[in-house]
Amino acid sequence: MEAHDALSAAIAQRVGFKGLWASGLSISSALGFRDANEASWTQIVDVVERIVDAAHVPVLVDGDSGFGNFNNARLVAKKLDQRGAAGICLEDKRFPKMNSFVGDRHPLADVDEFCGRLKAVKDTTAPDFVLVARIEALIAGHGLAEALARAEAYADAGADAILIHSRKSVPDEILAFASAWNNRRPVVVVPTKYYRTPVSMFRDAKISTVIWANHSIRAAVAGMREICAHIHSQEGISAIEDQIASLDDLFDLVGYDELAEAEHRYLPRRPV
Amino acid sequence: MEAHDALSAAIAQRVGFKGLWASGLSISSALGFRDANEASWTQIVDVVERIVDAAHVPVLVDGDSGFGNFNNARLVAKKLDQRGAAGICLEDKRFPKMNSFVGDRHPLADVDEFCGRLKAVKDTTAPDFVLVARIEALIAGHGLAEALARAEAYADAGADAILIHSRKSVPDEILAFASAWNNRRPVVVVPTKYYRTPVSMFRDAKISTVIWANHSIRAAVAGMREICAHIHSQEGISAIEDQIASLDDLFDLVGYDELAEAEHRYLPRRPV
Amino acid sequence: MEAHDALSAAIAQRVGFKGLWASGLSISSALGFRDANEASWTQIVDVVERIVDAAHVPVLVDGDSGFGNFNNARLVAKKLDQRGAAGICLEDKRFPKMNSFVGDRHPLADVDEFCGRLKAVKDTTAPDFVLVARIEALIAGHGLAEALARAEAYADAGADAILIHSRKSVPDEILAFASAWNNRRPVVVVPTKYYRTPVSMFRDAKISTVIWANHSIRAAVAGMREICAHIHSQEGISAIEDQIASLDDLFDLVGYDELAEAEHRYLPRRPV
Amino acid sequence: MEAHDALSAAIAQRVGFKGLWASGLSISSALGFRDANEASWTQIVDVVERIVDAAHVPVLVDGDSGFGNFNNARLVAKKLDQRGAAGICLEDKRFPKMNSFVGDRHPLADVDEFCGRLKAVKDTTAPDFVLVARIEALIAGHGLAEALARAEAYADAGADAILIHSRKSVPDEILAFASAWNNRRPVVVVPTKYYRTPVSMFRDAKISTVIWANHSIRAAVAGMREICAHIHSQEGISAIEDQIASLDDLFDLVGYDELAEAEHRYLPRRPV
Repeated sequence: MEAHDALSAAIAQRVGFKGLWASGLSISSALGFRDANEASWTQIVDVVERIVDAAHVPVLVDGDSGFGNFNNARLVAKKLDQRGAAGICLEDKRFPKMNSFVGDRHPLADVDEFCGRLKAVKDTTAPDFVLVARIEALIAGHGLAEALARAEAYADAGADAILIHSRKSVPDEILAFASAWNNRRPVVVVPTKYYRTPVSMFRDAKISTVIWANHSIRAAVAGMREICAHIHSQEGISAIEDQIASLDDLFDLVGYDELAEAEHRYLPRRPV
Repeated sequence: MEAHDALSAAIAQRVGFKGLWASGLSISSALGFRDANEASWTQIVDVVERIVDAAHVPVLVDGDSGFGNFNNARLVAKKLDQRGAAGICLEDKRFPKMNSFVGDRHPLADVDEFCGRLKAVKDTTAPDFVLVARIEALIAGHGLAEALARAEAYADAGADAILIHSRKSVPDEILAFASAWNNRRPVVVVPTKYYRTPVSMFRDAKISTVIWANHSIRAAVAGMREICAHIHSQEGISAIEDQIASLDDLFDLVGYDELAEAEHRYLPRRPV
Repeated sequence: MEAHDALSAAIAQRVGFKGLWASGLSISSALGFRDANEASWTQIVDVVERIVDAAHVPVLVDGDSGFGNFNNARLVAKKLDQRGAAGICLEDKRFPKMNSFVGDRHPLADVDEFCGRLKAVKDTTAPDFVLVARIEALIAGHGLAEALARAEAYADAGADAILIHSRKSVPDEILAFASAWNNRRPVVVVPTKYYRTPVSMFRDAKISTVIWANHSIRAAVAGMREICAHIHSQEGISAIEDQIASLDDLFDLVGYDELAEAEHRYLPRRPV
Repeated sequence: MEAHDALSAAIAQRVGFKGLWASGLSISSALGFRDANEASWTQIVDVVERIVDAAHVPVLVDGDSGFGNFNNARLVAKKLDQRGAAGICLEDKRFPKMNSFVGDRHPLADVDEFCGRLKAVKDTTAPDFVLVARIEALIAGHGLAEALARAEAYADAGADAILIHSRKSVPDEILAFASAWNNRRPVVVVPTKYYRTPVSMFRDAKISTVIWANHSIRAAVAGMREICAHIHSQEGISAIEDQIASLDDLFDLVGYDELAEAEHRYLPRRPV
């Protein structure tokens, strides 16, 4: 499940999700940036640190195209590893990238150059740090053969899993890829556009992981927009008190209980 | 209206609010911190910068107790001024503070020492940078006389407005303060706990400003929790697509149109 | 004069320099990064903010190649403008760059694309924010004609000045450029490699500005290395106390006097 | 040996020092801040991260008084531990502190409250993360008995070592403490003011560790000031080229060789 800050991470984890996706689109949006590498790599690392500290489940980080060349990619990956992230996903685009759902200017990275990024990340991070290679060939209009050739090359370069991306409203090209790829490495999908596809179809296709990539922030937007509009038009909060989370809910999500216990343990009884 | 990141700021502004409250509680929560000065002053400044850049309305910043003494307070205020915030609100507590709605350990600052903080901020910031002094005397159980004496001292020290805080479920002590204070400086209130009070009562009491101090983040929590729970239990997103904001909504809030126009203006037509 | 942190800025300003160069090489080195866009754009902005706050003279910032495309460049420039920098210098390379004195892989940016970066910066910053275009054509081996053509294009795109860079040990190609360019825009030079050239030659060539681009950090390295070696080998500091700056010097550079005065003004006399 | 940024750390380590002191005074100065908790705790953590990444020896961090109460102290310590620091030193003052060599306003922390800070740090960090308790009793004028009582309390609270601080020009009170304390925990000293004391006297007193606490930055200041003054008055760099570190020295300190090797390994041969 997507997370874009510590709070969304805490919510997703408590609901029961076993892993989080630190989404570039969502994090950028929360920061007021476009998903076009406006946020600096250190700003992303800072947000991921807050997410990891709030969650107690693995966090896979959307590393975009790696923030430059192999050297930038391995620097980001090393820092994410240090911050406690479980892995990074790199997509085969150039820097700066543009969000895959926006416009038609999505030049792909050269295969060899991108494989260099993957190798550099693999050589720099701990053995259990997961490297996912994301293939944009279908979105860029290059077809299945190109996608498969890239998957092969990326696996050879050290990718632990392949994220195959599509912006079609049906999962056909994803399923075709999965069938042809035959799980030489686990497959990850992001059904933002083909959202009507039942999960059973992904299971049948032996897809490893499904990322709900931006639904938490979109829920937050809907919730905030509705409440803001109400408060503004009605000039008051009495009618919406029950529709929003309580302060105690908020305190609970961030762990005020732990702080109260710690004050009991570490602060003197008398005021100082 | 409260904002805790750029996105919540953009939403509140578009709904029509004329000013934003960069809430310490909300910003801390989004960062996964308790509202007890866990977030550093520079982390707060960074978030406020994102909020200011996203909003086109004045942003009043919750400066807690000023992050230390007069020197810390004026440093924070100066940086907030530079980042484009409209003003800062300082509360008369010590550092580190604890959220006013949590527990009973809320020692007040010495009046003279706090006045030094106010003067230092006033002397360091631009003339149009607003300084609000927040009085915690009622919450600390000191009664109306103490609150009024402090208001007097803070106004003399340069406060442009007085925020009188209460955690009772009725506005009685707030209204008593407003009546006795008689608007020697404009009065600001935060009806989080006395939320049933109609705005007309604040108007009748000639209160200048009402802050809806944490309702956007509480709306976001409710929205995210519901959608996360649904996706987790139903294993799918098809049923909730219409309940959440669309990707286009998200793109619109962050201004992808401007980027597309700028690409047209600044990028060569042919790929380079 | 180069500065790489607040302290080097304070020193250069007190010695009498009328402007500072926030050097990418020096700042990167102080951060332990290679001058190859390892430091993020926000890390650079943070350091520049510290430099600007410490200096009271204009600070021209080495903006490398703009940290990406036109969009990244204008974002950085806008933030530097907000932080109080006097201007930015952009070089016509791709991202990530490599320091011009290292290796032979220095592909130039496409002229039109780079002009887009310049225009975007000009359109985004205040009218008095200076934009310097740095030409790497000579270092990349393209010769005088290419350098002049680029200078012409960059001036048309809005550059306020032209920095012509060279890594030869004599100033011939710089002087040839200056002569042919004939000050259509002021010329800036960086004689790191042709350091034997007397300033009178630059004056005669009507060059506007000479940047001593890395000599403060190189002086710091020499000073620290010598003292560290002495302390380590001699196991003591008694003999070097007079060779290094005193604590009072350090306090003076950072303005402890102002703090003492402010404590007198803002702190209560009695302890609280 | 003191370090205040990555470069000073790299120099001290290469000279042969076995450990580094991330000095609050030095780091603050480099940032243009007074040593009075002007720099935020996250700014300090960021600098320490750069120091740790540059050094390959243990880094003990000057944690001032812990940036607030027990909760702030453990938060900082946890993050320093995560960044790879070897330990933290906490002094028994209140927040905000003032540098021990400046002025006479140095109120000590309450013993129990400070012990709470120490316990909280010990409980939050890894077992091999070193906690040093720094005693300011002598500087605050409280005498040997108070210093010893505090040392006892701090050792009981979990301190791994005791830093006994003095600003006298002779080591008498330090040696008296060491003699009376009898190494119940290792003793650390900072002979900035009693710099004439030969190291043999510390060895004879069985003092564990001597910190040269600010000599690298003072050497840097002296070096930069001299070179800046020369360049400014002489208008040129030809005469000082041999007195400062070469560019190659600078490149060597930051590891450009590694980058060149990595480019060979990870970049395609042909340009892409």
